[in-house]
This record gives sequence, C-alpha cells and structure tokens, in this order.
Amino acid sequence: MKFNTTPVRGTVDYLPTEMEIRTYAERIITNTYRENGFLQIKTPILENLDLLLSGDSGDNQKLMFKTVKRGGKLDLSKPNLRESDIVEEGLRYDLTVPLVRFFAGNKEKLPYPFKSIQIDEAFRAERPQRGRVREFTQCDIDILGESSPLAEIELLCAGAMAYSRLGFENIVIKINDRRLLNEVIEKVGFDPSETIEICISLDKFDKIGEQGVYDELIQNNKDEKCVRRLLEFFEKLKTAKTNEESFEYLLKYGISENVINSLKVIIETTEKFLPKSFKLVFDSTIIRGQGYYTGTIFEVYDEDFGRAIGAGGRYDNMVEKFSGTKVPAVGFSIGFYSVVMLMIEKKILPKNVKIALIYNNDNTFEEIMIAKNILIQKGYETSVFLFPKNFKNFVSKLKNNGYNKIVKIQDLDKIIEI
Amino acid sequence: MKFNTTPVRGTVDYLPTEMEIRTYAERIITNTYRENGFLQIKTPILENLDLLLSGDSGDNQKLMFKTVKRGGKLDLSKPNLRESDIVEEGLRYDLTVPLVRFFAGNKEKLPYPFKSIQIDEAFRAERPQRGRVREFTQCDIDILGESSPLAEIELLCAGAMAYSRLGFENIVIKINDRRLLNEVIEKVGFDPSETIEICISLDKFDKIGEQGVYDELIQNNKDEKCVRRLLEFFEKLKTAKTNEESFEYLLKYGISENVINSLKVIIETTEKFLPKSFKLVFDSTIIRGQGYYTGTIFEVYDEDFGRAIGAGGRYDNMVEKFSGTKVPAVGFSIGFYSVVMLMIEKKILPKNVKIALIYNNDNTFEEIMIAKNILIQKGYETSVFLFPKNFKNFVSKLKNNGYNKIVKIQDLDKIIEI
Repeated sequence: MKFNTTPVRGTVDYLPTEMEIRTYAERIITNTYRENGFLQIKTPILENLDLLLSGDSGDNQKLMFKTVKRGGKLDLSKPNLRESDIVEEGLRYDLTVPLVRFFAGNKEKLPYPFKSIQIDEAFRAERPQRGRVREFTQCDIDILGESSPLAEIELLCAGAMAYSRLGFENIVIKINDRRLLNEVIEKVGFDPSETIEICISLDKFDKIGEQGVYDELIQNNKDEKCVRRLLEFFEKLKTAKTNEESFEYLLKYGISENVINSLKVIIETTEKFLPKSFKLVFDSTIIRGQGYYTGTIFEVYDEDFGRAIGAGGRYDNMVEKFSGTKVPAVGFSIGFYSVVMLMIEKKILPKNVKIALIYNNDNTFEEIMIAKNILIQKGYETSVFLFPKNFKNFVSKLKNNGYNKIVKIQDLDKIIEI
Repeated sequence: MKFNTTPVRGTVDYLPTEMEIRTYAERIITNTYRENGFLQIKTPILENLDLLLSGDSGDNQKLMFKTVKRGGKLDLSKPNLRESDIVEEGLRYDLTVPLVRFFAGNKEKLPYPFKSIQIDEAFRAERPQRGRVREFTQCDIDILGESSPLAEIELLCAGAMAYSRLGFENIVIKINDRRLLNEVIEKVGFDPSETIEICISLDKFDKIGEQGVYDELIQNNKDEKCVRRLLEFFEKLKTAKTNEESFEYLLKYGISENVINSLKVIIETTEKFLPKSFKLVFDSTIIRGQGYYTGTIFEVYDEDFGRAIGAGGRYDNMVEKFSGTKVPAVGFSIGFYSVVMLMIEKKILPKNVKIALIYNNDNTFEEIMIAKNILIQKGYETSVFLFPKNFKNFVSKLKNNGYNKIVKIQDLDKIIEI
C-alpha cells in the first residue's frame, strides 16, 4: 500500500536546514525577550469555541478550524443539523485571544503588569499562497496592565533588540495612533460609527493607491466631500519631512495634544535605545486591520522586503470584554515566517559545526562510538555514516543538510571542509 | 460579558515557572541530540486522515481529533450522514506516522540513514487523569535506514546523555526484543497469529500481576497448558541475577542466537558509554503495547518514579507500509511531561537570574530604560515595576514567578535576594 506523502493542503514540512534556522531564531528571540523581563507562557492549541467566536476579528472566525464531536456526543441522525451541533473545540487563530483568557484565569498568580512571551502555532484556513500557510508560528510579546507609553517603549525596544540580534540591519518601525485616525475621521465630517469601515479601506493604501481608496469609499456610499477632505489630510501630512514637522501639522489640524504627546514620548525615548541603523518614524498611513486596536499601532519593515515583518498595537478593551475587568494591553508580534525567509535570503545564519564521521564495515560498534564521542567532546555535531558507495552524491546530500566537515574514523585528526 | 477562563477539557495552561523548565529541558535535549548527529525536523499538526487511519495503533485512532469540513464542502442536508462525510483533516496522535510520511516524501534530499529529532505537540482525546493530557509534547529521536544494532546503541547513548544533562541520576534502561517474545510464544505452543493479543496481556504484568495475566489469557480462550508454560518461562527467567545468566537461560531454552547476540552487543557496547550511575539491563517483562514493533524494545526508569519516563523500539515494517520501500527504523521517545514533573520534584532546575527593577512615579521613561539596560548588560533577566502599594504581596508573586532578586532604580548597586 502507498500513501500520499505531501502534507495537508496549506501546511508545510520543515527540512533540517530550515528547522535549524527556525530553532536558532526562536532561541535568540526568546532569550532577548526574557532578558527584557518578559515571561514565557503556553496555552493549548485547542480552545473553547465560544471564546474564539466572540473575538473582534471577523475574518479569522470564518477561517477557523473546528474539531468534530467525538463518540456518543456526535448525533448525525438529528433533523435540521447545523454546524454548531457537530463541532466541539476550535483551533486558535491567534495567540492574543488565548492570552487574554489565560490572564483572566491566572491574574492572581502573575506579576502585574504581566509581560508575556508566546511562540506557538496558530491556524487559519486561508487560501494557500506565497508566504501564507494554514498552520503557522506566531511570536508575540504583550504587556497587560500598563496604561502609560512605557509599555510601547519596552515592547519596541525589546522587539528591535531581537531583530538586531538576529542579524537584521536597516529596520524601519512605523508608528501611528488609532485615536489620531478616529479624530481625523470625525473632523472631516464622518460619523464615528463609520470609523472601522473607513480604516479597513485606508489600510489598502499600499495596495490600491489613493484613487483605489477613494473609489472604494465612494462605492461604500461614503460622503464625497468627507472622503476628499480625508484624502487631503493624508496628502498634506505626507509632505512633512520629519516627525517634528508631522506633529506640528497635526497640532495645527486640531488633533488632541495628549495623542500627539504620547506618540512623541514613545518615539523620542525609544529612539535613544535603538541600534544605530534602525529608525522609528511616525506614519499616518499605518492602519492595521483588526477592530480591537484602541491606541498606538506599529509595523516593522526591512528595507529589502515589501511587507511588514512585525506589527502590533494597543488593545485596551479586550481583557474587559472577556473578564469583566478593565486592563490596558499592548502587543507586538514578529512575523516569524517572513523573518526566517529573509534570514535565509540574507544568509544571516547560525554557525554550527556539523561533521560526518565515516566508518568502515570492519569497525566495531565500540570503535565507532569512541570516535563519535571524541568529536562530540571537541564541540562538533557528529553524525556517523558507513563509507558510502556513491561518495559524490553522499557529500552533496550532506552539504544540503548543513554539514560542513567530514572525517574518516582511521584518521580523526584529518578533518576536511566540504 | 464574561467567559469561562479554564482551558479546554483535558488541556493545560503553562504558567511562567513551568514554562521556563520546559524550555530549559527542551534546549538541553535538542542540543544533546544535535551533538549526537540527529537533525531536527517539523511536520504539521494537521495530518491527512487516511494516513492517520491506516496506522497500527488502534486505540489512538479512536482517540483522534478530527476537523470538520469548511465552507461549501460541509453538506449537512445529505441523507444518512456519516462521520466520514463531515470531517476533513486529523490532528496527529503521535510523531511517528508523520515522520514516516515526511521521510517517504523527502528521502532523496536527506542523508541516509536519516536521524531525526522531533519535539512537538500530539493530540489524543483520552479520559483526563493525572499525568495524562489531551494535548501533549512528544520528544522523539528516530533512525531510519540502519538495520544493525548501531542504531539502538546510538539512540540509547544519546537518550542517556540527555537524561544525564537534565540532571537525572540512577536511571535504569530495560531492554527486550519482540523476536524473543515471538519465539517464546510459539515455543510454548501458541499459534503465531495469537502473538499480539498475548503481548497485550503480558504488558499488564506490572499492573495486574502474574495471576491477573493468567486470568485474562484464560478468559480470552487461550489454551491453559500453553499459558502455564508461558508464565513458567517468565518465572524461571526472573531468577537470573545478571544479564549473562539470563542469556544463558535463553540459549538453553532454544531462543535464536542472533536475537540473543543482538541484545548482547547492544548492552555490552552501550554500557561502556553510559554515565556511571546509569544501568542497562535485559528485562523480559518489557513488552510495549504497540503492534508495530518488530525487534528491540526498551523503557527508561528513574528510581523515584513508578512509570517509564522514556521508551522506544524497532519498527522495521512501517516505512514499507506507507511508501512501498523497506526501510529499517528505530525510535526513542522521552516522556516530556513526566520528565518535567520529576525535574520539579527533584529540584533540578535552570539557574536563571531574574531581577525586578523598581522605579517610582517621578522617574522618566528614559531613566527607567537606562537602568533596565544596565542590568540586562550585567546578564540579568530584567523586569521593571512601579513601586507597589502592597510590597509583601508583590514580592511573594515575584518569587512564585521565578524572580530571585530585586533592586531599586535609585540604588542600582544594592541588589537584594528575595
């Protein structure tokens, strides 16, 4: 009998070389975050359905994987069967909803504010495309319980330190504030109830351009005068060359001082602790799709890559929704898949020494193990192989799997680079 | 609105202190295995249903989580609906079946023999009980493509090195061979077709004792004379005091020399590379439930714990079943949950230095970040907190979350142990 050896649609198998980079990246990120005072936690992949269905992220709910009821609980003979009759749990679509549940359930045991690290799998049944998989690793830090901009400063500094230690240079962090967007939207004449819808269109600026955003808003029956005023605001703001010029314009435009000051203090303080080649800039075109953001929002860009490789923001209302208690919250997420992809492209890779120890048929198991242990003692990752029939093919496979040295058991001192 | 904050039935949230030990253990195990020449891979949690349903592990299939079809694919109006009409993928119940699929699909890219590391989640809807969770971490190494006992020797040496580096002492590895059991079962008069059934009963020796095994076999209509002869064999074997005495008895009993010699060379070679306080002993009562084992089987015990904390064996037929090509295989699995539990009990824990940096309301964000970075530079995992209202409660929470030092921002040199 023979089976299909390809993984489930939209999922991937990770070969040893890619896995080595993933593990390397994961350790650097975790270590950096731990040094910065964050504590790692882990929640289950299986999550309560009612919790997942109550979230603010409409699209994620449509893309949710659900498990079917087991054993006697599954009654398929029932008339007018609905999906809710046959499903039991959900697979989480992000790490934020489980974090909020975790925090609400364990608050008494945790330090406050609570600073968490999560590096774990999430699931979304998206249409498979380049760089989008259905089972993916999320890499989040969050601060629950800190309302001051210190939370944003700590997140951004820790995140930047992680990118830097991974080997990234020339990183630009773009920052904005949802409250600013809300004020502008109201100022140009829209009703506050239209805010989320308008933000969803504005979020497409990158993809469909100014005309595209205009067309979409008009199509959605938004008032033309308001739309024009809104786009004018962004156009004028774009002409500002520095953060300072932008803030001056915003102040003149009538944006609340406390919103501007919050952005100012975050930028001015964080900048002092960023690696030299990193930049932090105010950018009013950063929107972030999710409806749950309430304040600061930010995205991380590498100059060699079009899409964001990290993002986050403040979501001050979510914990209250789940637990009844108001707890301010900010999160930052590294785009793990893109980061690993870029590390491979940029060749900023771990430097392990992997050696293949070649033995012969006349070697005893004991001889092989003695030689192997000598090499392990010397600090090599040591894999033993019988002298191969096709040496060239053997060496080429070794190289493709990250081996960089080879040695024969009869001459352990003669290590050859491959 | 308020939601249930407990995780899905049978799953657990990991708090920071436990998570720290898990990460520590995972890193030691991965590093040790890598030094021993194993390569880490990762397969998806979502797995093809037909593959999962074709396995040899009957019970695991009953306990499988399955995902429900999404969107238009789910047709609940169909008459005589069956479970197979509504399910799409499965969540893997172990890492062995996915490994075999992975290997069959990527053989040409991988070194041969292929030595893999997998540390990942698997899912079984077991009745929740102490030490059994529905979503659990498996920690496997496997060697695919090595038929000689070198595979067992390498697995056992690498496994023992991992336990030792985690801080375990007085580990006993018990080893047996399925071929030996098969021969004995046939020799006492059973039909070979009864072997698996008899092994399942023999596997309960620990729990139900000799009389229990006898009763169960008789109840299952096994021939009484054969049952008596079988139990007599085990009783006599038990009187042997050393591995040598056992092998002498087996030879006299008529067990094939090649089976005995394989056990002998594995034990004699491996023993030379074990940490001093570790033992490797032949034990005919080690059975292992799964039907897929074809040769050596082994279990790892810590003297302070009743159940095995690691296990494995040879499964030479499984790859052929999935891929059509015969590939010998041996695997070893560390019981990650039990190992972490025992590490906590034995207090063999990571020695991180976690410090709480206390600031005041009159400190600027910049001052706080400067002080934090000084402590990070000194090698501390540094978390900042505003001077708390209830200092005693604050310190007690810190201690429970693994913090061992505290320092005030106005006197960074005065670090206090807590």
